[in-house]
Amino acid sequence: MDHVRVSPLLRARYSPLRFDQGHELADEQLEALLEAARWAPSAGNSQPWAFHPRRRGEEGHATLVEHLAGSSRLWAPDASALVVNLARREVDESGMPYSEFADYDLGQAVAHMTLQAQAMDLACRQFRAFDLDGLEEALGVRPGWHILTMTAVGVAAAAAPDGRERRSIVDLRTAGRSDA
Amino acid sequence: MDHVRVSPLLRARYSPLRFDQGHELADEQLEALLEAARWAPSAGNSQPWAFHPRRRGEEGHATLVEHLAGSSRLWAPDASALVVNLARREVDESGMPYSEFADYDLGQAVAHMTLQAQAMDLACRQFRAFDLDGLEEALGVRPGWHILTMTAVGVAAAAAPDGRERRSIVDLRTAGRSDA
Repeated sequence: MDHVRVSPLLRARYSPLRFDQGHELADEQLEALLEAARWAPSAGNSQPWAFHPRRRGEEGHATLVEHLAGSSRLWAPDASALVVNLARREVDESGMPYSEFADYDLGQAVAHMTLQAQAMDLACRQFRAFDLDGLEEALGVRPGWHILTMTAVGVAAAAAPDGRERRSIVDLRTAGRSDA
Repeated sequence: MDHVRVSPLLRARYSPLRFDQGHELADEQLEALLEAARWAPSAGNSQPWAFHPRRRGEEGHATLVEHLAGSSRLWAPDASALVVNLARREVDESGMPYSEFADYDLGQAVAHMTLQAQAMDLACRQFRAFDLDGLEEALGVRPGWHILTMTAVGVAAAAAPDGRERRSIVDLRTAGRSDA
């Protein structure tokens, strides 16, 4: 990324493996995270997303921790907050589609939240290592809605791992097509 | 969004209805857009995305314009570039899943590209108003890969529409769950 000018906010972002267990997320910070997600673009302004944030020590945080897998339980409870990210794929139990872009648009909103965290000197790590069915039951997730991921938000207590890798730009521009 | 401090980059972003047909996207700008998308996070670093950008006047741009729907043909050709956004859901024709987060992660990468555009005083409008099947055939999209959207990138020639609306934060925090 060194030879082109990518925005510092995007350039500095990474998903830390550890969080500072002493940091507390202020009300204004949580509100800014949600506000950033709220203004993400979506197909036909469908906004097919919902967020269930719980800060460390707050009521409901333990419920999220209980459903973590062994791997995420080693680090995610240290984060200042855990946010459950939900997409609305269907309208309700009829199965009628709500948005075919539900997952895509949720991804955009979570990216906005993540970059807002970065702008506040915080960091996010998204993960899927939790008991999805158990958590959907515990939270009473309604028909049509689906939990996709959780985001851990807080102060990074580990630097970006060495040797981060990505596919080349040439590969990004040619993959998936036979005319390339 | 006025009472909380949301990053200027996120705060200023909107999807313009018109683009300046005189603006040309420089090589370095296109590279920065792709580089920003390239470093987006993804599930297990699966990077389930590809991008097919064509600048106005460049070889291949006409192919994208030919597949636009009547509605998008009124404005999208004016943009400095059109980018086809592809997600890899399956490995190949076997149908074996490549990533269940393909759409979600593509959304994140497109959000990064969009915010990089914003950082360069450009704007993006994502859309789905095109002949999807025809475009997949024209581009020779391989099994497992799917075109989800196009992004028009350029200089906005229309201000943000009045009366932009979003669901309230309370609604974002309570929708989709019966325990809320």
